[in-house]
Amino acid sequence: MKTLTKKSVSRRNFLTGTATIAGLAAASSALPISVANANHTETTDKLPDFIKWKKRSALIVHSSKTMETHRTEIGSSLITPIRHIYVRNNLPSLTDEQIGNRKDWKVSVAGVKNPKTFTLAELQTLGQTTIATVLQCSGNGRGWFPHKPSGSQWQTGAAACVLWTGVPVETVIKACGGLAKGAKYMTSTGGDAPKNLDPKKATMERSIPLKAHKDAILAWEMNGVDIPNAHGGPVRAVTPGYFGVNNVKHLIKLDFTAKESSVKYMKSSYRISPLGKKGSQYPSCWEMPVKSWVTSPSQDGKVKSGKVVISGVAFGGTKKLSNVKVSLDFGKTWKTAKLVGPDLGKYAWRQFVYETTLKPGFYNVATKASAGGKSQPELRMDNRRGYAHNGWKDHSISLDVV
Amino acid sequence: MKTLTKKSVSRRNFLTGTATIAGLAAASSALPISVANANHTETTDKLPDFIKWKKRSALIVHSSKTMETHRTEIGSSLITPIRHIYVRNNLPSLTDEQIGNRKDWKVSVAGVKNPKTFTLAELQTLGQTTIATVLQCSGNGRGWFPHKPSGSQWQTGAAACVLWTGVPVETVIKACGGLAKGAKYMTSTGGDAPKNLDPKKATMERSIPLKAHKDAILAWEMNGVDIPNAHGGPVRAVTPGYFGVNNVKHLIKLDFTAKESSVKYMKSSYRISPLGKKGSQYPSCWEMPVKSWVTSPSQDGKVKSGKVVISGVAFGGTKKLSNVKVSLDFGKTWKTAKLVGPDLGKYAWRQFVYETTLKPGFYNVATKASAGGKSQPELRMDNRRGYAHNGWKDHSISLDVV
Repeated sequence: MKTLTKKSVSRRNFLTGTATIAGLAAASSALPISVANANHTETTDKLPDFIKWKKRSALIVHSSKTMETHRTEIGSSLITPIRHIYVRNNLPSLTDEQIGNRKDWKVSVAGVKNPKTFTLAELQTLGQTTIATVLQCSGNGRGWFPHKPSGSQWQTGAAACVLWTGVPVETVIKACGGLAKGAKYMTSTGGDAPKNLDPKKATMERSIPLKAHKDAILAWEMNGVDIPNAHGGPVRAVTPGYFGVNNVKHLIKLDFTAKESSVKYMKSSYRISPLGKKGSQYPSCWEMPVKSWVTSPSQDGKVKSGKVVISGVAFGGTKKLSNVKVSLDFGKTWKTAKLVGPDLGKYAWRQFVYETTLKPGFYNVATKASAGGKSQPELRMDNRRGYAHNGWKDHSISLDVV
Repeated sequence: MKTLTKKSVSRRNFLTGTATIAGLAAASSALPISVANANHTETTDKLPDFIKWKKRSALIVHSSKTMETHRTEIGSSLITPIRHIYVRNNLPSLTDEQIGNRKDWKVSVAGVKNPKTFTLAELQTLGQTTIATVLQCSGNGRGWFPHKPSGSQWQTGAAACVLWTGVPVETVIKACGGLAKGAKYMTSTGGDAPKNLDPKKATMERSIPLKAHKDAILAWEMNGVDIPNAHGGPVRAVTPGYFGVNNVKHLIKLDFTAKESSVKYMKSSYRISPLGKKGSQYPSCWEMPVKSWVTSPSQDGKVKSGKVVISGVAFGGTKKLSNVKVSLDFGKTWKTAKLVGPDLGKYAWRQFVYETTLKPGFYNVATKASAGGKSQPELRMDNRRGYAHNGWKDHSISLDVV
């Protein structure tokens, strides 16, 4: 276990522009905090102020602003408790002071026939719906890439299933007279870029294919509460089926553009490139591939022989989940698991349960989900930054049945 | 606003038997706490220890152990955040010390071919599912009965929509060889009765018609976390569509009986009797009737004229919700609201949205839900203790549009 030393780059320095972009990963909190791997050995140090309301014991702390949820701590009740949800921010979360009155928060809408700026209060008069989506970091599973890509070494826990309430993007477009001609992308801009830095480098702006706007919403609520600052309130673009980074936090602009944004976070970051290569010609982290993993039992403990219930979660990204299979013999044979609990729609995960009887011994428990005609691969698509891991082998667990 | 004085009957005294049943309502917490009505004027005093993790500002405190959720604080995201969920316990919640190791908590099963006692760990090897239900106190809405029945003066907030995870009762019965002959009721017993008191008076035991067991579960998780003590962990009987009291907390026994339990909480309490009458010949608080109410906007504030989104929740008890209608003119005319968000099944509530354009003025906003061929009545079924209020008139709100 190693301990981060207290950072000299405080958020105040950062926001007045004395920090560089390269310093971003280290900034945001002046609190010293212990860091650990995923084997539950981290200390119970306090969490940084901006997420002090989270449940410390549910989280694995990778750095002062990246925390993943323990595999067993997403719960078995479909929706991840908000205090357990992972934290991953490229930029320091805005503070209450920076946000001001939430109802006055402004989102401008462009690429429409009648461009307008809406306050949150105005957005709330346009319409309201609730959707459930899997929110997952592009790098979830990075910890298992054999070439050890840089970045947080997530295993399963940079993912959550969340209920979002907000206004459908379609409704917002209608209130602006419809789309302007030539729109090919929905481009969302966050308001968390430090003002004195080059906007091309510091602005979190993401473009996704236009078709993805149909199920997208501009959300102000998350699991029944105003979206916390750490998760991008007062308004966040929620882009169902697309990796977390596309769900732009602290949303200040929604645009429908002919081209992809040219900021760094779109052009060069979050590209799935071969080992040793990079560039904007490679695919962006957009649609999430089909994926599943076991959440219970924990591989940390021993399981009593006899009847055993193995449960977990599975989702199809933008495709409806077809099935989940379970193997107890390193993928030689597979049996179909039961899908249980409410079906919150294709963008949410489903819970699966596999009931079996086990004799004492060590078992490897692997799960393989299918959606839209595709199944999880055994390994992964190797790529420079370790994105989009959905291989079933690395996600399998060892069970010690006694 | 009035303030309860510090109670001399501490839980310790209570549990050693020096308190009487009559003292139950006053016991459970030694904390002084302010009490208020539903008009948001209560103080921000701390909550009692057993629910200190709740969000104080989301709750209206009626007594030291009854708190309802503010009308606007159930959130707009379908599932009520656990920190906002109402608190209502006939008996003091068991403490961690009383419960001990949760996995060792025992539930005996009788009225089956092979009666057995299961630990929680054993129940968890039998099977697992998740269901969403409306959890609602029988007395929710009591605050509007004109004859001022005794008991907590709930308005809308003794209700929540909750995700529960546990083992289906059907699965437990199967593990016990099936039902014994003659079973007509599912009878659940809680372990929170103080040991030195007359079990007939102090035991929380509830019988419901046998058919209701088909969708019931023995739950150990609530909204993704172990069921908190205040909500009846480690194991709670969840009886979908039936009033809260039937969802027995701290479950120690599940029985399938030929007769209804003869304890006070079944025989005489929770009976829907005419004004001035009581007795076991009157209907028990079992199935919840169809009901709906507005949750946003709040009637405490002013709403800007122009486009307005009115939203709320509606449910059909044991029946699937058919529709929700909205009236802005004291029930003279009704328009159909949109049902939005995921459908979690007939036992959950659905969110409804009614989009309209309003000129300045005062409006009465009433909602009327229908399910199973029945609609909410205008008034209510008057009854001695003020149970099962589902009249649309009392549940309507006033809107001040400026």
